[in-house]
Amino acid sequence: MEPRMMRQIVLQSYAQGNPVPGNFAVAQAPIPEPGPGEVLTRTLWLSLDPLIRFGMDEQHVTGAVHLKPGDVLYGGTVSEVVVSNHPDYPVGCIVEGRTGWREYAALDPVAGDRVRGAMRRIDPALAPISTALGVLGMPGQTAHAAVRGIGRVQAGETLVISAAGGAVGSIAGQIGKILGARVVGIAGGAKKCAALLDLGFDAAADYKAPDFAGQLKAALPEGFDCYIDNVGGDVTLAVLRHAKYRARMPLAGFIAYYGFGMEGPGPDHLPGFFRLVMTKALELRGFSGPMVAGEAGLAELAQWVGEGRLGYRETIVEGLEAAPAAFCATFAGGNSHVGKLLVRVAQPSS
Amino acid sequence: MEPRMMRQIVLQSYAQGNPVPGNFAVAQAPIPEPGPGEVLTRTLWLSLDPLIRFGMDEQHVTGAVHLKPGDVLYGGTVSEVVVSNHPDYPVGCIVEGRTGWREYAALDPVAGDRVRGAMRRIDPALAPISTALGVLGMPGQTAHAAVRGIGRVQAGETLVISAAGGAVGSIAGQIGKILGARVVGIAGGAKKCAALLDLGFDAAADYKAPDFAGQLKAALPEGFDCYIDNVGGDVTLAVLRHAKYRARMPLAGFIAYYGFGMEGPGPDHLPGFFRLVMTKALELRGFSGPMVAGEAGLAELAQWVGEGRLGYRETIVEGLEAAPAAFCATFAGGNSHVGKLLVRVAQPSS
Repeated sequence: MEPRMMRQIVLQSYAQGNPVPGNFAVAQAPIPEPGPGEVLTRTLWLSLDPLIRFGMDEQHVTGAVHLKPGDVLYGGTVSEVVVSNHPDYPVGCIVEGRTGWREYAALDPVAGDRVRGAMRRIDPALAPISTALGVLGMPGQTAHAAVRGIGRVQAGETLVISAAGGAVGSIAGQIGKILGARVVGIAGGAKKCAALLDLGFDAAADYKAPDFAGQLKAALPEGFDCYIDNVGGDVTLAVLRHAKYRARMPLAGFIAYYGFGMEGPGPDHLPGFFRLVMTKALELRGFSGPMVAGEAGLAELAQWVGEGRLGYRETIVEGLEAAPAAFCATFAGGNSHVGKLLVRVAQPSS
Repeated sequence: MEPRMMRQIVLQSYAQGNPVPGNFAVAQAPIPEPGPGEVLTRTLWLSLDPLIRFGMDEQHVTGAVHLKPGDVLYGGTVSEVVVSNHPDYPVGCIVEGRTGWREYAALDPVAGDRVRGAMRRIDPALAPISTALGVLGMPGQTAHAAVRGIGRVQAGETLVISAAGGAVGSIAGQIGKILGARVVGIAGGAKKCAALLDLGFDAAADYKAPDFAGQLKAALPEGFDCYIDNVGGDVTLAVLRHAKYRARMPLAGFIAYYGFGMEGPGPDHLPGFFRLVMTKALELRGFSGPMVAGEAGLAELAQWVGEGRLGYRETIVEGLEAAPAAFCATFAGGNSHVGKLLVRVAQPSS
């Protein structure tokens, strides 16, 4: 008997600088058979996380899960269990894990994957299951960790956020407001900046505008206490001029640099960065959102969502084949979405 | 009546890259008259601190006390009070402050200078008074803050230090040993590396040796938990490859970059630095040694010195006129001293 087939998206070629749709290919593969203790999952939602770019370099770079051409792209998913050989993950249950850009996956749900560990069962009664990839998942935990754990933002302080319209930034800004901070967001284009004000941000600066430096200065008259960076590059160099003494900088991402590997074109900005860190006694920290925020962070996020104090936005792309183009648009700065970018791979069967 | 004259060293020209002796000039000036509440101090010891380079740029750069040609170089000193209009600072008492590269200064000892505040009275019975510029002064506090306050070094951890033979590094390494850490020092030349082992370091790596990378790898088989950086540049980029997950990096200096202002020649190393910080969850912090270590840090340093557990080395240059050449040698990497570099400006009068 012929095995049933599924679609998956594989690396076609290594990326040079920003990824392009030609770096990806749609491939067919047999739907795998789950072994003892394993489950077969059917992907419902796929998260498009810019960090995936790390694995698309030909040269292996620190911290990346290195892909070779033909490998399936990795990525967070929400799936339903359709075949189960594990009593704790019965058929029909909804799970969040990192099964990648494919329609089905067979895996041990307790061992999970080596990066994220066991699959997490999702309660569909709590919130829409897609939020397990957004406000009630890794982006939410990253935002919570950045504002609370690493940033230690206090009432009355000024918090500034780059890529503030993104999955992490839009949540981080709202958490800042809940904590009583003044929140300034940076985004590209007047439309996104307006969306930030709708979310409750106190001010917004448009990095694509000719007077970005002036907007930033006007929005930060007394400087900032905490800068949650998602972008790096020129935006970050401009923001850092406004650091107060002992400001904190949780590093949640640096999409402007993802295509550079370890070195970008000159001049070298590390000397100036070190100078700012030393003379202003800045604190820069990388972190894992899930590790810092943990279950307690997720519980607080769920409480705020339940109370209506924390909103979330999703931009939904339909169908697995649409994933590469949507992913690439994020890097070109041409995307106009606010909030979490998701691919709807399939409808739940029930 | 003609005023009595004194010598002082002024900025002759702005520095380009590493400072050269021609950037300095010896000048004559009248010995100042102390006003009400002020004292006249006679300089005994002058500290040659690489950070002074910050003030020698033509372009004003963040965090620098900006000098103009003709201005007296600033710097920490130990002096004796020779005329006093302040009851708490009588004639004959020894004070530490920031009176600059000159033989005499008149100032309000309580207001002090805007960077360091009030002048500190030194007890000559406690230790040689020159230590107020070294192990029992700002370098000691910086080392204490780096290892204890910012670095949070624990017994059994691995601490690596650049410019380990310098004033801060040589103290920081010994503090690491007192706390039970494994300590690896980086210095230039076999002689300096041997001096580190004499100080009790567990291993040393010579950044001038052709096999520096191999020495570093051998000295850090399991990576490092804390890196106290004094240099930046290629040394730091090499060290960071060995960071453990969640390693700390107290930034005590970055002498390799002091001549660069905000930008150095390409390529840009900030992308790779951000990548390491994020993927390894590193923590980078600038800090003020005196502010973090405070009086408690000084007391602990004095206790360790008294118990013979913390040694200190001084390299002494004779005479104010010798200061520029000795200062400049520090930048060219050509100095062979270990420990604190001091200028003996005058002998105490008593």
